[in-house]
Amino acid sequence: MKEQGGQGARGGMLSCMATQSREIRLARRPQGEPGLDCFAFAEMDLPDPGPGEVLVRNLYMSVDPYMRGRMNEGKSYVPQFEIGKPLEGSAVGRVIASQDEKLPVGTLVLSMYGWREAYVAPGFGLRVIDSSLAPASAYLGILGVTGLTAWVGLFTIAKLKDGETVFISAGAGAVGSAACQFAKMHRCRVIASAGSEEKLAFLRNELKVDYAFNYRDGDAREHLAKAAPDGIHVYFDNTQGPQLEAALYALAPYGRVAMCGGIAGYNVPVPGPPNLIQMVGKRLRLEGFIVSDHFKELPAMLAEAVPALAAGKLVNRETFVNGLDAAPGAFLDLLRSGAGNIGKMVVKLGD
Amino acid sequence: MKEQGGQGARGGMLSCMATQSREIRLARRPQGEPGLDCFAFAEMDLPDPGPGEVLVRNLYMSVDPYMRGRMNEGKSYVPQFEIGKPLEGSAVGRVIASQDEKLPVGTLVLSMYGWREAYVAPGFGLRVIDSSLAPASAYLGILGVTGLTAWVGLFTIAKLKDGETVFISAGAGAVGSAACQFAKMHRCRVIASAGSEEKLAFLRNELKVDYAFNYRDGDAREHLAKAAPDGIHVYFDNTQGPQLEAALYALAPYGRVAMCGGIAGYNVPVPGPPNLIQMVGKRLRLEGFIVSDHFKELPAMLAEAVPALAAGKLVNRETFVNGLDAAPGAFLDLLRSGAGNIGKMVVKLGD
Repeated sequence: MKEQGGQGARGGMLSCMATQSREIRLARRPQGEPGLDCFAFAEMDLPDPGPGEVLVRNLYMSVDPYMRGRMNEGKSYVPQFEIGKPLEGSAVGRVIASQDEKLPVGTLVLSMYGWREAYVAPGFGLRVIDSSLAPASAYLGILGVTGLTAWVGLFTIAKLKDGETVFISAGAGAVGSAACQFAKMHRCRVIASAGSEEKLAFLRNELKVDYAFNYRDGDAREHLAKAAPDGIHVYFDNTQGPQLEAALYALAPYGRVAMCGGIAGYNVPVPGPPNLIQMVGKRLRLEGFIVSDHFKELPAMLAEAVPALAAGKLVNRETFVNGLDAAPGAFLDLLRSGAGNIGKMVVKLGD
Repeated sequence: MKEQGGQGARGGMLSCMATQSREIRLARRPQGEPGLDCFAFAEMDLPDPGPGEVLVRNLYMSVDPYMRGRMNEGKSYVPQFEIGKPLEGSAVGRVIASQDEKLPVGTLVLSMYGWREAYVAPGFGLRVIDSSLAPASAYLGILGVTGLTAWVGLFTIAKLKDGETVFISAGAGAVGSAACQFAKMHRCRVIASAGSEEKLAFLRNELKVDYAFNYRDGDAREHLAKAAPDGIHVYFDNTQGPQLEAALYALAPYGRVAMCGGIAGYNVPVPGPPNLIQMVGKRLRLEGFIVSDHFKELPAMLAEAVPALAAGKLVNRETFVNGLDAAPGAFLDLLRSGAGNIGKMVVKLGD
């Protein structure tokens, strides 16, 4: 196999035993809702790390709804996954062999080399994390790309101000639950939706949102009118579809919408809201964003989030599944209406 | 009549003859497409102007698509017209009696007292115009609220930069034709749509747009792909509906949409675009606006537009109808798909 090439010449000083790993590749592109047949497992021997490289064994990997878009064919603005190549995504792992003096064995690193048990990569592309401040898996959730997505959407895109009223759809999901909490930290009034009673209880009892409703139960527009009779200032949109329509009705003049995702339509297109004309009279702004444009804002987010998490003022709720074999199913579950996960879905790969 | 009250006590020094006028009032709110029965004519005697007031006879009045929204009932963010009260809109008139020393008889003034032949009003709310720089009616068009709407949409809302590519729907209409020309003045590549061959000829031959197409002829998405293979940077949206959908496909990453109006759906709601999800991956921004928030930008617009118009570099194409009786029909025609007007629709009321 190609993955074995060159191992004899590289890093023999560290190990003369090839490191076994497994990875998940894109087997075919889905039409509509993806199935397990879109994923293929492959085994390989990894080379020892060359100069400047490290060998990392993953402890946790992330599955995220945005990955559905990367499975499609065609022109996109996030690079597409390629058939026959490993999938990618956030992962936290431990360095187990190193030829980068900045990353000694034992260092915990955050990477985009998810969907695999282990990998060899240049050390400079990896971010060191400190598990004395928070559990390592939190760097996939509220302290990682997930938390940054919530942060950027609320404060950079929607310019949420302290004391305003914000509606967050899919509020019990990974990004949604981070957004609910960041907004509460900024003394905002938070309205959140979810699709099960268990999730609503989580929103009310653990995240302390001001008003939570089940989007399957009654009309979102009526819930918003009841929760915010004077209108909402910001809508953090994870769903598009009917909840976006309801939010357009509920937004106060000069309201802003951070367009983070559209889980209502990832597998099957949904009609657009018929009330976009409200954007003119109310001077509304809708703006899409991708978190990778905003990685420079991570330190600002962490400066608030790390002490808050340590002080118990932030909840990093996680749903774990175990082992690489469980990753495709965990991902597929995320995309289902009524996904079972509360908070961040994490695949545990090692200890 | 109420309108006659108090005239004996006010301004008798200027005139002891009551001034006759006619005005158009909202008779009923339309359901769907409005008809002539929504309008009622009333005759009255105007009082002489009191201290600080002027009596103005209108020369021209404007009819604009946005007025359709003001005919609806219910909460809105532009004040609604009231049943039994006169309609409002831009008008240019001449002072014929004055008790405001800043506005001597003969002064030309711009006001919101359209839909009537004459009026009495405080002088401080009126804007003096200079017909030596441009014909008086131009202050209803490219030098007035119409031109400012185009200016604000392009430069303030969509932040159009010199050399970018912009698509303008309803490009042969009043706001659209101003937007096409302002964009060309800024060395932009301009793509415009319209609904008749006569309008396309106007766009091509007089406004010198780079690509004009009939939105009834073929797929707007194909036209945009052909006209701008690398995508458009800005969409100036006067229509919503299918042209907004096509623009979302055509917009390049970080593209912006100025949501000015939605003539495709003013009478009958149109479905929303099913491809709003593109806003996330392409980081698009859609923003609605109302020109009255931006009157402070009028001097900046006039500083560019007045010399350009005087030098023949701007075209202020107008379609005239004569007399107050023709105003409702002219307004209704604007709302029809395939409206007959090219450029600004102006109702001439006097000389």
